[in-house]
Amino acid sequence: MRTVEFKRHNGVPYYRQLADILHRQIQEGIFAAGEKLPSEKELSVTYGVNRHTVRQALSELVSRGLVYKQKGKGTFVSPAAGGVVYYRYSRSHRFTQNILDLGLKPEAKVLEVREDGAPSRVAKSLNLTSSDRVILLEILRFVDEIPFCISSVYLPAAHVPGLPEKINDFTSLHQLLFESYGLRPVRLHSAFHATFPDIDDALMLQIPQGQPVLKVESLMVTNDGLPIEYCISRFRGDRCKIGVDFV
Amino acid sequence: MRTVEFKRHNGVPYYRQLADILHRQIQEGIFAAGEKLPSEKELSVTYGVNRHTVRQALSELVSRGLVYKQKGKGTFVSPAAGGVVYYRYSRSHRFTQNILDLGLKPEAKVLEVREDGAPSRVAKSLNLTSSDRVILLEILRFVDEIPFCISSVYLPAAHVPGLPEKINDFTSLHQLLFESYGLRPVRLHSAFHATFPDIDDALMLQIPQGQPVLKVESLMVTNDGLPIEYCISRFRGDRCKIGVDFV
Repeated sequence: MRTVEFKRHNGVPYYRQLADILHRQIQEGIFAAGEKLPSEKELSVTYGVNRHTVRQALSELVSRGLVYKQKGKGTFVSPAAGGVVYYRYSRSHRFTQNILDLGLKPEAKVLEVREDGAPSRVAKSLNLTSSDRVILLEILRFVDEIPFCISSVYLPAAHVPGLPEKINDFTSLHQLLFESYGLRPVRLHSAFHATFPDIDDALMLQIPQGQPVLKVESLMVTNDGLPIEYCISRFRGDRCKIGVDFV
Repeated sequence: MRTVEFKRHNGVPYYRQLADILHRQIQEGIFAAGEKLPSEKELSVTYGVNRHTVRQALSELVSRGLVYKQKGKGTFVSPAAGGVVYYRYSRSHRFTQNILDLGLKPEAKVLEVREDGAPSRVAKSLNLTSSDRVILLEILRFVDEIPFCISSVYLPAAHVPGLPEKINDFTSLHQLLFESYGLRPVRLHSAFHATFPDIDDALMLQIPQGQPVLKVESLMVTNDGLPIEYCISRFRGDRCKIGVDFV
């Protein structure tokens, strides 16, 4: 993590150097989709260049489609920048709402739904015995039509009778769980891990296998504290930053 | 995420297949250092093999140095497995205590300490103006003598006068902040991102640049809610899983 310095005499115009620095910061998610960039004045002071140069750099980024200007409000990172989406995790925030709140377009595609035995890790977390069955859903999620994450969702079969048949008109999993079963799972625990995707995940997420994913394992419970959902999500590292508040 | 099935007739003994499956799960952090494996009975039911085969598989893992048995308690993932350390984030948990709690050996080495201007992102989070100075510490942390993470810690210079001179007898940053300045920062917010290390980080963490890191940006505040520390940590993806409780 070195501070990037301007190269004063390398022949590349200052505005282009500044545009490239900001471009990289957007790609790296230092500034995420929908987020406001520092003001012209702040950028001018931070990088030691005049306001005119800052304005030129921002215009360059606008023409690259990375940022957009809102009159009187400032310059914002464009959702279409292909940059990083800043995604909030809390007890109750869920995918569909999260993405809508950002002004982006959420979609979900159910790749698979089946009844199965629970893997030992999942059985332990959901307090199931080895003879209990789970419903497994594999869900591929998109933001603005680009793959965003793939989730393996495990639900105790006894709590969601007939779920596989209801999946056809699926929009939001949690809406379905509430409307059909009165269940409103809340997040109790998540574990974050940076790793590589397996070959199936890489294909679905449309990334090379050498590209990192943010793997998140989460346990959801009912209001009464009953474990009701175990979810293993793999987010594209180049598309997502997950924020958590500690309250 | 496919369930791994036994190949009944591929010539590899069942115990070896099971040992390999568990070996991979430990490497992937599905079972982390210090964590208990499922019981012999659970493994027997999950994988559809008899208890004798399970015992053979576990002995194989013991001889590979990946797990150890505690009489009457079960089988645990060895800290020396080179596997994944399960690391807890909360408002108050910090590195040294976290690692000690796991029965592992924490160490920290200060690579650099200097006074500097704040990068725009940091200035914004710490509510600093562009003329305010920060103290930047680059800290490399080890668990059991293997590099674990590298952190860039930013503190407002006005709040920690003389800090650079006190760093010599550094053991725990937060102990130093409390003893010298009465500061007890608590975690307010963290953002998680899976990405690649830059060349400097890769060298320090002793990993190839193509190996993922878990990058975590955190804002710490005082008890009164005053922003006091901004920290950008890069954890080795192969060594760390970070757990968060949503309470």
